[in-house]
Amino acid sequence: MDATEDTTQDTHQDTHQDTTRADLDAVLAAAHAAARPLARTAPGERADALEAVARALEGARADLVALAAEETHLPQARLEGELTRTVFQARLFAAGLRDGSLLPTRVDHADPDWGMGPRPDLRRTVVPIGPVLVFAASNFPFAFSVFGGDSVSALAAGCPVVVKAHPGHPRLSLATARQVTAALAAVGLPEGAFALIEGVEASKTALTDRRVRAAGFTGSVHGGRALFDLAVSRPDPIPFHGELGSVNPVVVTPAAWAERGADVATGWVGSLTLGAGQFCTNPGVVLVPDVDAFTSAVELPVPGPMLHPGIVEGFGAATSDLGSQPGVRTAVEGAAGPDGVAAQVFAVSAADVVANPHLLELEAFGPAGLVVGYSGEDELRDVLDVLPGQLTGTVQAGADDPLAAEVAALLAEHVGRVVWNDWPTGVTVSAAQQHGGPWPATTTPTTTSVGTAAITRWQRPVAFQGFPATALPDELKDRTP
Amino acid sequence: MDATEDTTQDTHQDTHQDTTRADLDAVLAAAHAAARPLARTAPGERADALEAVARALEGARADLVALAAEETHLPQARLEGELTRTVFQARLFAAGLRDGSLLPTRVDHADPDWGMGPRPDLRRTVVPIGPVLVFAASNFPFAFSVFGGDSVSALAAGCPVVVKAHPGHPRLSLATARQVTAALAAVGLPEGAFALIEGVEASKTALTDRRVRAAGFTGSVHGGRALFDLAVSRPDPIPFHGELGSVNPVVVTPAAWAERGADVATGWVGSLTLGAGQFCTNPGVVLVPDVDAFTSAVELPVPGPMLHPGIVEGFGAATSDLGSQPGVRTAVEGAAGPDGVAAQVFAVSAADVVANPHLLELEAFGPAGLVVGYSGEDELRDVLDVLPGQLTGTVQAGADDPLAAEVAALLAEHVGRVVWNDWPTGVTVSAAQQHGGPWPATTTPTTTSVGTAAITRWQRPVAFQGFPATALPDELKDRTP
Repeated sequence: MDATEDTTQDTHQDTHQDTTRADLDAVLAAAHAAARPLARTAPGERADALEAVARALEGARADLVALAAEETHLPQARLEGELTRTVFQARLFAAGLRDGSLLPTRVDHADPDWGMGPRPDLRRTVVPIGPVLVFAASNFPFAFSVFGGDSVSALAAGCPVVVKAHPGHPRLSLATARQVTAALAAVGLPEGAFALIEGVEASKTALTDRRVRAAGFTGSVHGGRALFDLAVSRPDPIPFHGELGSVNPVVVTPAAWAERGADVATGWVGSLTLGAGQFCTNPGVVLVPDVDAFTSAVELPVPGPMLHPGIVEGFGAATSDLGSQPGVRTAVEGAAGPDGVAAQVFAVSAADVVANPHLLELEAFGPAGLVVGYSGEDELRDVLDVLPGQLTGTVQAGADDPLAAEVAALLAEHVGRVVWNDWPTGVTVSAAQQHGGPWPATTTPTTTSVGTAAITRWQRPVAFQGFPATALPDELKDRTP
Repeated sequence: MDATEDTTQDTHQDTHQDTTRADLDAVLAAAHAAARPLARTAPGERADALEAVARALEGARADLVALAAEETHLPQARLEGELTRTVFQARLFAAGLRDGSLLPTRVDHADPDWGMGPRPDLRRTVVPIGPVLVFAASNFPFAFSVFGGDSVSALAAGCPVVVKAHPGHPRLSLATARQVTAALAAVGLPEGAFALIEGVEASKTALTDRRVRAAGFTGSVHGGRALFDLAVSRPDPIPFHGELGSVNPVVVTPAAWAERGADVATGWVGSLTLGAGQFCTNPGVVLVPDVDAFTSAVELPVPGPMLHPGIVEGFGAATSDLGSQPGVRTAVEGAAGPDGVAAQVFAVSAADVVANPHLLELEAFGPAGLVVGYSGEDELRDVLDVLPGQLTGTVQAGADDPLAAEVAALLAEHVGRVVWNDWPTGVTVSAAQQHGGPWPATTTPTTTSVGTAAITRWQRPVAFQGFPATALPDELKDRTP
């Protein structure tokens, strides 16, 4: 997976399709009206709904992939895999609803001898937070878009979902939304359970509407920050879960370098340039003991076409900014692809990074990387000390490498996922996944946007005190033994 | 427990004791320096530390309670009970650290057949979020102050804690902090693990300092909102967990009224005026089928002394505001206590509340309540529909009362804890507790500030991918069978 860092998310204009004020109001009214009936569905009904959408998307696979290829320029095999991932993800949440693992409860029976004084019977469950606004990303037209992780986790929690379509794939967004809407209606979910809106203004209006109770976003730091600011400045602030920027540093230890330096360089380039570098887990920074030797081992491929012109433009600006920072030099430049975009590798010393840690926030969304040369373990530690929050950090370790374990522990202070002798691109969807990290990686560092734990973002705990069984929610009733 | 709604929290001046810029910088530097060693303590070491503080506070019980009584005017028995609660709470977190229940992990072994493609070995644990700034409350000088729930849960998570003392009990704060600091040092925790600061300006500076990574607050909507705004407007926004206002509505169903109306009225007055009404779970609003009959059954006690003059002043302003709202009339007024404060009960119709839902946000921190008369089930539902977020909601039900179950379900849409045939004051500390709710009850509706689940506010998940056992955190290693 991985999610877009498209800097055009909040500025792109596609006025001819923008949702009108009146239509938006109808969408929000329907979402609000759907909140209660959706909250009262049984978990199995929501599982049925997610599986119905999964079947519908599978059924429309050929058409959807063709549309996606046309609008995003991503290769068919990649899009097929992404749709598989998307359908799998929906089914994984459905399974977690059926087995109860996604609906945590806790029962404390009354205890007259509780140490602070008698304890009443107290039972906690989770309820949906209410209508959720989802901002779709451009770089995963299925897995992080209309029926991506945010939408699926929010629906699983029982929240109505309003998706702001990404203008990078408008027709695919509409086609996907039609499948979702029809499938949800067929299993009897309320009409307002799902809707698609278009346009920046409509999305901002929705974000500040009191009927919207939480939001999920995947995109750039710039765009995400602007929306976060709107969400928290409401008269009634709401949770805004933004997955923003990351340079996903890779540390190559001296032992790893000595044992398999060329393979590491090749592996890094592969991960850096995968999908023309349009992944938020793209390892944009690599720390190595010998810059010249490392960059000599780098061979850059010709990038495929980018998602859309805005990304080409943003990449040009970002690489130009990066290249003009103190101490930064161009080390390797590849040949240009169909958009005129060439993969680029810059180099800088660890000392220059420590003097200008801002360098570690300059994400160039695309096939560009920064090689940081460290001249000893202390200098390596100094760089890790100034590392801003990241989605991932990777250590390339030798066979017997105590430094690597130390580096992993230091990376864990700043990142959501630490990868050992592998690459950060390719994010599995599972229960143990953590896709998040301290600012600027995300706005909410205690949550994840990938994996089944993503559902907790939309679940509000409620405790019931002293209730008779007849009035308790089903999941809180004592089981007959 | 329950926490202060003291509106003076962010305006009170006690300049002679304010922490200086230089001292604050030293405190924050020490907290920052302590973050790594504290994060690396074993859970058992942190449990030892919490228990050491608990023993120290027990050892100093007589002195601390005497100081608290002097500074807060709360009765000795209440303060004794609160200290017991505080010590119990620390031990409960310690127990959760020892048995592992507060440190959730998840292991997904590698799976070549995972439905979206081969899954790497992925294991998730939690790490401390970093130094936490705690704003102490005035109304619980032990349980929500220097070593209250926020401090204990953050230390349990492994976070250094900086507490902003509440000016309502400065000497007690200092005396408590001395006990905490000495006990933590005695068990070998780093010096910066805990510190006390004083003064509004120092706390604002700390809140915007990049070394502070999260904050916990208990107090008024006004004060909490100002601090929330500071926290989220930082260049690097941080989580701000504010427990703010609540009117904690009670619904008396017609059946409950018919069966035991006088008892319900007496119970309500008891909960409303407990501790001079200085509880954030104080049931400030009660919905009844017959206002006149209900208020006739109300007998108001003479309030004891309030916590401090700022609360007396705030109560006067709030009751005056409440009494001047459209349709609101004074129904019962008690005799004045030592501060000149009299308990007051106002009355209003459900129709006037629906026309002016703002009424349900007018919390008067003290012994004042609003009786809302509803003239039928639909009118009752209309009021519940416009209810802002609350910490608690209570239903007083009859013996066979389907409406009560419906009301409980409606309350659950707006509150963190629903109480059945009991009263909301008195909040037990346990695993199932949920003390929180949608805005304006809190700033983070998916979290709790009471109960062991409060620790999750300070825990950041981190996943480890493809790690050899030697480099994994202990808690993620495979157990030998």
